[in-house]
Amino acid sequence: MKRFAALFLAAVLPLAARADEGMWTFDNFPSAKVAKKYGFGPDAKWLSEAQLSSVRLAGGCSGSFVSPEGLVMTNHHCAHSCIEQLSTKEKDFVKEGFYAATLDQEVKCPEIELNQLVTISDVSKRMHSATQGLEGQKFAEAQRGEMARIEKECAGDDDKVRCDVVTLYHGGIYDLYKYKRFQDVRLVFAPELAIAFFGGDPDNFNFPRYDLDVSFVRAYEQDKPAKTDHYFKWSTTGAKDGDLTFVSGHPGGTDRELTLAQLKFQRDIALPEALFSLAEYRGALTMYTKLGAEQHRTAEAELFGVENSYKAFKGRYEALITETLWNDKAQREQKLRATVKKDRSMQKQYGAAWDMVAKAVDEYKPRRKEYQYIEGASPGRPSGFRSRYFTLAKTLVRAAEELGKPNEKRLPEFRDSNLPAVKQALFSAAPIYDEFETFRLGYSLIKLREELGADHPFVKKVLGKKSPQELATELIAGAKLKDLELRKKLWEGGKSAVDASDDAFVRLAKLTDPDARAVRKWHDEVIEPPEKKGAELIAKAKFQVEGTSNYPDATFTLRLSYGSVEGYEEKGRRVNPITVIGGAFERATGREPFALPKSWLVANQDGRINLGTPFDMATSNDIIGGNSGSPVFNKNLEVVGLIFDGNIQSLGGEYGFDPTVNRAISVCSPALLESLDRIYGAKRMVTELRAGASPAGLR
Amino acid sequence: MKRFAALFLAAVLPLAARADEGMWTFDNFPSAKVAKKYGFGPDAKWLSEAQLSSVRLAGGCSGSFVSPEGLVMTNHHCAHSCIEQLSTKEKDFVKEGFYAATLDQEVKCPEIELNQLVTISDVSKRMHSATQGLEGQKFAEAQRGEMARIEKECAGDDDKVRCDVVTLYHGGIYDLYKYKRFQDVRLVFAPELAIAFFGGDPDNFNFPRYDLDVSFVRAYEQDKPAKTDHYFKWSTTGAKDGDLTFVSGHPGGTDRELTLAQLKFQRDIALPEALFSLAEYRGALTMYTKLGAEQHRTAEAELFGVENSYKAFKGRYEALITETLWNDKAQREQKLRATVKKDRSMQKQYGAAWDMVAKAVDEYKPRRKEYQYIEGASPGRPSGFRSRYFTLAKTLVRAAEELGKPNEKRLPEFRDSNLPAVKQALFSAAPIYDEFETFRLGYSLIKLREELGADHPFVKKVLGKKSPQELATELIAGAKLKDLELRKKLWEGGKSAVDASDDAFVRLAKLTDPDARAVRKWHDEVIEPPEKKGAELIAKAKFQVEGTSNYPDATFTLRLSYGSVEGYEEKGRRVNPITVIGGAFERATGREPFALPKSWLVANQDGRINLGTPFDMATSNDIIGGNSGSPVFNKNLEVVGLIFDGNIQSLGGEYGFDPTVNRAISVCSPALLESLDRIYGAKRMVTELRAGASPAGLR
Repeated sequence: MKRFAALFLAAVLPLAARADEGMWTFDNFPSAKVAKKYGFGPDAKWLSEAQLSSVRLAGGCSGSFVSPEGLVMTNHHCAHSCIEQLSTKEKDFVKEGFYAATLDQEVKCPEIELNQLVTISDVSKRMHSATQGLEGQKFAEAQRGEMARIEKECAGDDDKVRCDVVTLYHGGIYDLYKYKRFQDVRLVFAPELAIAFFGGDPDNFNFPRYDLDVSFVRAYEQDKPAKTDHYFKWSTTGAKDGDLTFVSGHPGGTDRELTLAQLKFQRDIALPEALFSLAEYRGALTMYTKLGAEQHRTAEAELFGVENSYKAFKGRYEALITETLWNDKAQREQKLRATVKKDRSMQKQYGAAWDMVAKAVDEYKPRRKEYQYIEGASPGRPSGFRSRYFTLAKTLVRAAEELGKPNEKRLPEFRDSNLPAVKQALFSAAPIYDEFETFRLGYSLIKLREELGADHPFVKKVLGKKSPQELATELIAGAKLKDLELRKKLWEGGKSAVDASDDAFVRLAKLTDPDARAVRKWHDEVIEPPEKKGAELIAKAKFQVEGTSNYPDATFTLRLSYGSVEGYEEKGRRVNPITVIGGAFERATGREPFALPKSWLVANQDGRINLGTPFDMATSNDIIGGNSGSPVFNKNLEVVGLIFDGNIQSLGGEYGFDPTVNRAISVCSPALLESLDRIYGAKRMVTELRAGASPAGLR
Repeated sequence: MKRFAALFLAAVLPLAARADEGMWTFDNFPSAKVAKKYGFGPDAKWLSEAQLSSVRLAGGCSGSFVSPEGLVMTNHHCAHSCIEQLSTKEKDFVKEGFYAATLDQEVKCPEIELNQLVTISDVSKRMHSATQGLEGQKFAEAQRGEMARIEKECAGDDDKVRCDVVTLYHGGIYDLYKYKRFQDVRLVFAPELAIAFFGGDPDNFNFPRYDLDVSFVRAYEQDKPAKTDHYFKWSTTGAKDGDLTFVSGHPGGTDRELTLAQLKFQRDIALPEALFSLAEYRGALTMYTKLGAEQHRTAEAELFGVENSYKAFKGRYEALITETLWNDKAQREQKLRATVKKDRSMQKQYGAAWDMVAKAVDEYKPRRKEYQYIEGASPGRPSGFRSRYFTLAKTLVRAAEELGKPNEKRLPEFRDSNLPAVKQALFSAAPIYDEFETFRLGYSLIKLREELGADHPFVKKVLGKKSPQELATELIAGAKLKDLELRKKLWEGGKSAVDASDDAFVRLAKLTDPDARAVRKWHDEVIEPPEKKGAELIAKAKFQVEGTSNYPDATFTLRLSYGSVEGYEEKGRRVNPITVIGGAFERATGREPFALPKSWLVANQDGRINLGTPFDMATSNDIIGGNSGSPVFNKNLEVVGLIFDGNIQSLGGEYGFDPTVNRAISVCSPALLESLDRIYGAKRMVTELRAGASPAGLR
């Protein structure tokens, strides 16, 4: 799930992590607890093997090596953009599916980067001493500087290494995560969207489910399949009800430690506003995709992303308006604050933390829209400039300035450790569709004017007397950055080349950057430091009170969760945890999004499919957005499933885990094999998966 | 404003109605208080004249007689649907404006009904004794029955009389309002939309403003202009800063007396959900209007309504998440509850009221979507069947059943008192656009499936294996109700005719009506009675504690508010209360929605316009959605303005009035006359307005 993710909590959450709860770091996995409940506790070697067999897709997903030849299993929706980018007017791989019958038919994905976590080391001492006694802007600068230094020392100038200082427990612990980086990643297999997203938006986040949300890509090194000694073997039988299951992956983020003031801001402002914005864009975008086949092809990945975020945010919102969850959060905070207050030393160290955070939240409110619409924020969030051209131009304009600074003084996204990712995005050969660009830029300029107001100086500066649509059309007509060579020239030419450019978007980015930087600076120096510092103090207070027997909030770094194949109660009836392929044929109506692809209909007509094959399953693993593409595996490190979703109740996992109904949803390994073999005739892959055999032998 | 309306309350609201606050009934106007502040207090004769000169537009607006020949002034946006309905592909009056240079060029509006309030009489005793000691369903039935009897006794079978029992102070008082009804209403004048809605959605609910949101219609009786002895005279000079101003009109509804449980439901569920729904529909509808000129023409009135509701609901939402307002509401409720609790007799009578309401709210939550999507709710709210055809069919199907019952047993909308309105809507000659109908029905069916879930029995019953779009197309192809004669035949033929009809929508309405009735029955018998009864008990407790010196929540009945022309502070600067026509030319960009119409540009070029003429003004009158089209008049009963909006801060008026920033926005009478005279050359109207002279003399 790219799926940023809320749940209808029926019960009050107790204070400590319960049965099956937790997105654990690999260096603090509660093996003894798992062994006690399930009769098996992972040892160090097992954990290391699972860690090295797992990969992150830098764009926001998870995956796993499933052969010694670099074959990676992930979701269709994680590779959707790539599949769309490789398609043309004439050949639509999203609609028709993709299969490289031979190795040399595997095609490079322009924008996929894989990260394999190699080592974890504790750098808390260095980080804490670098910021000791500092506040506000100085705190932020010192923190950023020390992070940049540590990362630089770790990675040097090696593009193949990625080093990130990871903030865990909101600054209670800082770890250095060292990754091996793969940037040559090629598409091997993807089914038709009709089955990869069967049930479409109506079934998204629902269960029972019938969905083959899979794609396979392959990591390459020096133009050859990467040698990957660590990989998950394949279970042809899969898992059954009650079996112990593990999920390794990269949950994008949870907010289980937010203060009440922050939660209130989420509930009353941030989530509703994101939803208003997404809902309207969804309506417009849906209509855009209906204008014609080409519009559909070029915009459907964006629509999928928008619908997915919309549903996920709505789930979160629903969790926050649930009284039981809210009251539980309030009680926990009051209890911790009371405990801190009673101890004079703790009160002195941590007592001010909550008000510090609340003040930052209050200060953020009146300028939040300027921050979002002028500087632009996270994906799925509102923005004044929805445009690939603008993103490219802004990168060039900022790089020209930032790269002249010492590493530790740069904006974090331009630190050396992140440059390979910046360059991959900047020099991506992914097509740009001018008509779609015009639509979404024009749309976002209207929202810019609406949200900041027609009289806002920035709006006047950007629009002048032009209408949003008119400006968008004019900008696209003057856009030159489709030319990859020009982008390279501007990147290499630095500030003088960028200043001399007459590209319409470079000019726009230059015009707007002072305003964007000003509001960014305010956010990074006035708002963020007290929020971070407050969170760190609260985390430390918790350590002191509760010990370190808990897991940290998710941070898009590798985590391991445990659980089992398990049904649940919904609206008074028991939901069985495993569906079978035959169910898909029963559910099919022949109409989108419930129309099965021709390949499935034909295979069924021919009697080739075993309809009793387990298809999708629900497990009690604690996961969230970012876990999309994660392997589900058994105690023998064999793949039994492929995470692609959570049920609707799991969305509240953002704020807390309810073991009675929160379920992870995966495709069962038997369904994957059955369909590759009997529906798609992908013999090369079947052999590779079954044997871990070299794909070279299969050409 | 059709505009359902929220404000950023800076200050805590005290308990009693303050300076300029209040939407007062004509029989309880605080003349002494006004006299004390402004040196003038209306007497009975003055009040009667103002009452009889005011009219209601049954569709949701206000207006006033401005000549003895039935000439009525209202907003352009109140007649927008009519103007659109009178337009054709060839002649677009919305875009080009409309002016009947002679009386016989005035054209009938298919759906406008005017109501002139003639008498008010207190029927509280009858109503209270009819429901004494009853609860739940019995309470609701008794109440409905007694209302129907009173209305019937009052109006008899006279179509020209409309009698409504009006619930004031949530049942503290019941009044019988007797109206004279006009159903032959003809369009006289409307300017181009470009000036009637100058600044469009970006400027909507904003001030300073430059907007000529006016239209004139005329009431007819027996095919001749109605003789209207009571009417407002015209002030050619208008009002100046500080002048006392009155506004009479029909504020649609306020929620100033909701309990905390109800407010919480509004804040967390009702408003956000309505906004999610409106936002998405807005996005889709905007794209629809861009498909072509014809799509634009046929859908822009709906888009305007959606954008207006969206902004109004957002304002309300923002008021509810304002801590000061929330805390004030909480304190008031706690204080009243504490006072009640201290007095044994009061506690016995009223003590249970708040929990009664809270329980009803809780019970409503889990089935709210079924109620909304299956039975359909108020305008601007979500619905599963956005379709004029479906609305007509549902009316026919229900009428066939309801009209066979005694008056007091019918659903309220089919009581004799309401039949003229039902018939006017049913037999309206307004065009139906099949392409637009297909679009919005398909859209709403998708939402029906999304909100209730693909597996909901009702969804399965409606859709079967069809896609929403497919079903919509099929239904429209089988729609026959465009034929007015057929509608009449089905209405007159009753149940047997309706049962025999093969019209696709009649069949759909028959198919869905049992489900719709079931959920309606649940709502009307289980949810509404305790909410109403609780509100009535709380109102009585308030009477007992505070006396009757207050005004009731708005109920789309005639109210009078007082105030003055007054500026306010916004973002640290003073906003002047009056703009001038020259400002429009400064603000114009030549691009929609800031493009002035050609008539204005030419008149300005020719030097015909006095640019210093007062254009729009802000007054401190307490108004809300439904007051659109209200006259603003001085102590001499002369029109000085025409309400068309409130500022953004006024939207919180739903829940409370903040005198420092809440402002009503109107067009100044001099701008109306100046533009009619010098821009539009509407000499006939200028003479009629100036003189109250017979329009017959002006042919």
